[in-house]
Amino acid sequence: MTAQPAVLEDYIARYSRWGLWGPDDQLGAMNLVGPEEIRAAAALVRDGQVISLTMPYDQTGPQRGGLRSNPRLITTATGTDVLAGAQDRLGLGSLGFADDMVIMGTQTGTQWDALSHIFHKGRMWNGYSAAEHTSRGAARNGIQHWSDRLVMRAVLVDLPVLRGIPALDDGYAITAGDIEEALAATGVSVQPGDALVVRTGQMAARRGQWGDYAGGDAPGLSLYTVPWLFEKNIAAVATDTYGVEVSPNEIDEFQPLHQVAIVHMGLAFGEIFDLDALSAACAADGRYEFMLAATPLKITGAAGSPVGAVAIR
Amino acid sequence: MTAQPAVLEDYIARYSRWGLWGPDDQLGAMNLVGPEEIRAAAALVRDGQVISLTMPYDQTGPQRGGLRSNPRLITTATGTDVLAGAQDRLGLGSLGFADDMVIMGTQTGTQWDALSHIFHKGRMWNGYSAAEHTSRGAARNGIQHWSDRLVMRAVLVDLPVLRGIPALDDGYAITAGDIEEALAATGVSVQPGDALVVRTGQMAARRGQWGDYAGGDAPGLSLYTVPWLFEKNIAAVATDTYGVEVSPNEIDEFQPLHQVAIVHMGLAFGEIFDLDALSAACAADGRYEFMLAATPLKITGAAGSPVGAVAIR
Amino acid sequence: MTAQPAVLEDYIARYSRWGLWGPDDQLGAMNLVGPEEIRAAAALVRDGQVISLTMPYDQTGPQRGGLRSNPRLITTATGTDVLAGAQDRLGLGSLGFADDMVIMGTQTGTQWDALSHIFHKGRMWNGYSAAEHTSRGAARNGIQHWSDRLVMRAVLVDLPVLRGIPALDDGYAITAGDIEEALAATGVSVQPGDALVVRTGQMAARRGQWGDYAGGDAPGLSLYTVPWLFEKNIAAVATDTYGVEVSPNEIDEFQPLHQVAIVHMGLAFGEIFDLDALSAACAADGRYEFMLAATPLKITGAAGSPVGAVAIR
Amino acid sequence: MTAQPAVLEDYIARYSRWGLWGPDDQLGAMNLVGPEEIRAAAALVRDGQVISLTMPYDQTGPQRGGLRSNPRLITTATGTDVLAGAQDRLGLGSLGFADDMVIMGTQTGTQWDALSHIFHKGRMWNGYSAAEHTSRGAARNGIQHWSDRLVMRAVLVDLPVLRGIPALDDGYAITAGDIEEALAATGVSVQPGDALVVRTGQMAARRGQWGDYAGGDAPGLSLYTVPWLFEKNIAAVATDTYGVEVSPNEIDEFQPLHQVAIVHMGLAFGEIFDLDALSAACAADGRYEFMLAATPLKITGAAGSPVGAVAIR
Repeated sequence: MTAQPAVLEDYIARYSRWGLWGPDDQLGAMNLVGPEEIRAAAALVRDGQVISLTMPYDQTGPQRGGLRSNPRLITTATGTDVLAGAQDRLGLGSLGFADDMVIMGTQTGTQWDALSHIFHKGRMWNGYSAAEHTSRGAARNGIQHWSDRLVMRAVLVDLPVLRGIPALDDGYAITAGDIEEALAATGVSVQPGDALVVRTGQMAARRGQWGDYAGGDAPGLSLYTVPWLFEKNIAAVATDTYGVEVSPNEIDEFQPLHQVAIVHMGLAFGEIFDLDALSAACAADGRYEFMLAATPLKITGAAGSPVGAVAIR
Repeated sequence: MTAQPAVLEDYIARYSRWGLWGPDDQLGAMNLVGPEEIRAAAALVRDGQVISLTMPYDQTGPQRGGLRSNPRLITTATGTDVLAGAQDRLGLGSLGFADDMVIMGTQTGTQWDALSHIFHKGRMWNGYSAAEHTSRGAARNGIQHWSDRLVMRAVLVDLPVLRGIPALDDGYAITAGDIEEALAATGVSVQPGDALVVRTGQMAARRGQWGDYAGGDAPGLSLYTVPWLFEKNIAAVATDTYGVEVSPNEIDEFQPLHQVAIVHMGLAFGEIFDLDALSAACAADGRYEFMLAATPLKITGAAGSPVGAVAIR
Repeated sequence: MTAQPAVLEDYIARYSRWGLWGPDDQLGAMNLVGPEEIRAAAALVRDGQVISLTMPYDQTGPQRGGLRSNPRLITTATGTDVLAGAQDRLGLGSLGFADDMVIMGTQTGTQWDALSHIFHKGRMWNGYSAAEHTSRGAARNGIQHWSDRLVMRAVLVDLPVLRGIPALDDGYAITAGDIEEALAATGVSVQPGDALVVRTGQMAARRGQWGDYAGGDAPGLSLYTVPWLFEKNIAAVATDTYGVEVSPNEIDEFQPLHQVAIVHMGLAFGEIFDLDALSAACAADGRYEFMLAATPLKITGAAGSPVGAVAIR
Repeated sequence: MTAQPAVLEDYIARYSRWGLWGPDDQLGAMNLVGPEEIRAAAALVRDGQVISLTMPYDQTGPQRGGLRSNPRLITTATGTDVLAGAQDRLGLGSLGFADDMVIMGTQTGTQWDALSHIFHKGRMWNGYSAAEHTSRGAARNGIQHWSDRLVMRAVLVDLPVLRGIPALDDGYAITAGDIEEALAATGVSVQPGDALVVRTGQMAARRGQWGDYAGGDAPGLSLYTVPWLFEKNIAAVATDTYGVEVSPNEIDEFQPLHQVAIVHMGLAFGEIFDLDALSAACAADGRYEFMLAATPLKITGAAGSPVGAVAIR
């Protein structure tokens, strides 16, 4: 952490979009995705292939307790009850049923950060006070504002494949140059309103032996990608790591890219995406752009959401 | 309930697809949706419009407790904590964060039934024993098998608009003739592997004053649509009611359509879908077919899943 | 609400115990219960009778959702699983087991308010700032500080029995005179460090048809009992209502007795206690004093706790 | 595991109490605790000392996820909200409040096993079928039947102190002889209806570095204490380990003592009790008998319960 946090304030001064879409905006960079971009996304569907980008929500996940625990499925009616006659008294004839609940952190597995997830100096996206997020949830910038969003064009930047390595090293800071190199190698270009999907290989390397995957050191986007993300009008970034950006952080601030990109630029950050099957599919046919359909759950006031994310290509 | 349950056994004998896709199949009618169908779905995206089909997951939902409660958001870090200095000890610099969890029944709001949700005489889809569903969840037919599915072509059958009424009456049994009439009026035809999305108007009529919406009388598909659903190779049915099929039931069995269509035909049933915005959009331009992107959460072993469902058109 | 809130500030000025037991005290009026008082409590055990004062924690409780929901038991291993052979793979021999979890508000049923539950002008018991209670719980005055408390002498004031009525009217404000009258009629006197247990009959009147029992109008202690509670050195008050004090409130403040008695006097308030069996037992033999054993769960940082409360007599 | 399971069946044949208290009994050995025993318990209160036997319910507990997770406190209203003005809209005047919920396994910390927790060959206490325990909980032998129980005389058997060691070795099987030796050394005798509280020192040795404390090897009661427990009419056994009995098990059966003592003798097993403060107090004055007040929560249908357990002496 040798650089000065001055870069943080400098980036905020130069790249903040607060007010750009009006004082009441709660969509952020999703405003960059309009009808034209959505049509362009759908036009990428050529093979009729659907690939899940979501890892299983269950007790095998990467969390280790404390703030965040792995999702827990709890059954409220079971097939074994049916066989034991426990549903007989309900008078359902030949029908039996199973039912269940989940207890899950909104950010414990594959997920989108809502714009209410991160504050910079007590303010969130578009300048709303942190006081708008209370124990009752977010009165501003809740994830529900994206309940008809996150359907968009996306490009995969697959650095391990590009480099011929299993995974980037923990602590590797991905630069705009790295991204451009990968795009050039795969012959795709980013468009305004795109989702940038970056595979680091860390999930593949850690799967099942998570260790400190959730919260520890990781490869990820450099803080210094901010100008590139801004100029390219990237609307969303998703990675196969727990926090999109490189860790340890490059300056003496925690998650400085979150502070600029989420709070001031309004980007959607997607974390813990499982990109390995997508990687294989893209490598097989050389097509690194696809339609992303990854609409979060409409959970009122939530700071994030799990998602059944798919790449359609 | 004047008809004999004989129809149930007759339908099962004639329309069961057990074994059709092999003894280990856990996808059911999703097998009907292949690359060609997915390409056809994407080809329906013309205006670049995305419409949410999911109602809010919060305490304003239709559940009344007991087996199923409305979703509950619980915050584990808040903006107010940030303002009060409670995150200072974490050493995060100028960053603050909010975090949260949800406790939710998988079937309390907009949701898909998994093929493990319903049993007929102690068996679920493809003949698996109900013993495969225990307090640990579903060892067979869990919702995770559809984590790359439910992206498909869909048609909207909007009967209230067709009839010029706010909503069908509770207890109204929608027939194959009704469906065909609506399709003809809107100039669309169903294709194999389609999702049939049926709007009854009940959600619009009950919204905010739910009463017995979740579990009470409702308009819905007649049991006697089974031959039509089978012959048309419909892969999914979604409605704006809690249970797809008409209630009270037409024969002396509980949810007989569930017993045939889910257990024996392998269909995906989508319930509590919010179809009002879609209704308005379709009425505005007369196009009643669209791309449905409604992939469930990859919750291992779950009997259903909430979903961020969207119509793309 | 005709009286002036001036009484609130006047009572606080006269009766606040902040600092009485040192600047770090987190026990409040439990300091009034020492070894002598505990011995005196045990000496009240004559018949060897134990009576539960706790109502069932289940979905039949009085809550109606929103902030507080009724407790929910969720099973994680069942007897029906055992019968279906689902535990066979565990290799437990002839043993089978059931297991479960609860999701419950700490204050949804029979419970004690912790001293961190209520703030007056942003401060809690002993003057600690409300900033000490964050989304992680209470750093001060959490219920765990009473994990070796709430074993004490108690007296029952059973006003419906005294008056020969089923229940006091909703909105009836119980005065010090009412309490003294009941004590005199039953021949008991309060001692320093006692728990004052007051039965209003409201639970008996509402049981199973709760309506607005949790949060609505109720009989309860008058704000004007403050001087009496202070002078008698009462350490805890428990009632069969949701909030100890009368509702509607007598002055233009919400729960003013909470603001004085909990925040400034450090009392333990016990709510939703089921006193009907105790009432019958006391009426049968005329003994209205007993040993109370009602230690809360040692939940770190909690603002309240459910309790397996018993009267021993 | 060299002995034959024949001993299990032999013990059951000789010591089963099924039917002893009638075919509908759901109290088990708690029937041994009557008025006389309760008076005797209260008579042990001499110093007016109350000692908590409950460890903190929080994320520092011994569980490691999977079937059982450590208790989780979740706040639903916070002091920081109050300070940020988030409760202003509620119109509460100068009052603010904190509120919270817990999600906790009933058996993840200090707890009592209910008689519905364990099955032997598909049957639980008094012969009820395991079919009586479904996903809705226990229709028989739920913990609520003890909501006016577990107030009783208790003796502490403190083997580490007796032996002058920090803790018994994992795998050490405590015999009736060991217990008698400790009782003799401390000059106390057990009485019918007593709780036998056995300290192994394992909690002291593992506290904060739990490792496999919950579920791994442990010192504990030998299966061969069954005749002694039966003849002495012990009603409850509590230890500072996760499972009362020694692990690894002495015969080729899982938790054979549970199968005999809980299922067939109806004993209350108390697990993960924190006995270190009690140990110090007993050592200080040499009195090893006390009044136990450890009534479980009245959770309808639960297979166990957390408890605010105290020793009163």
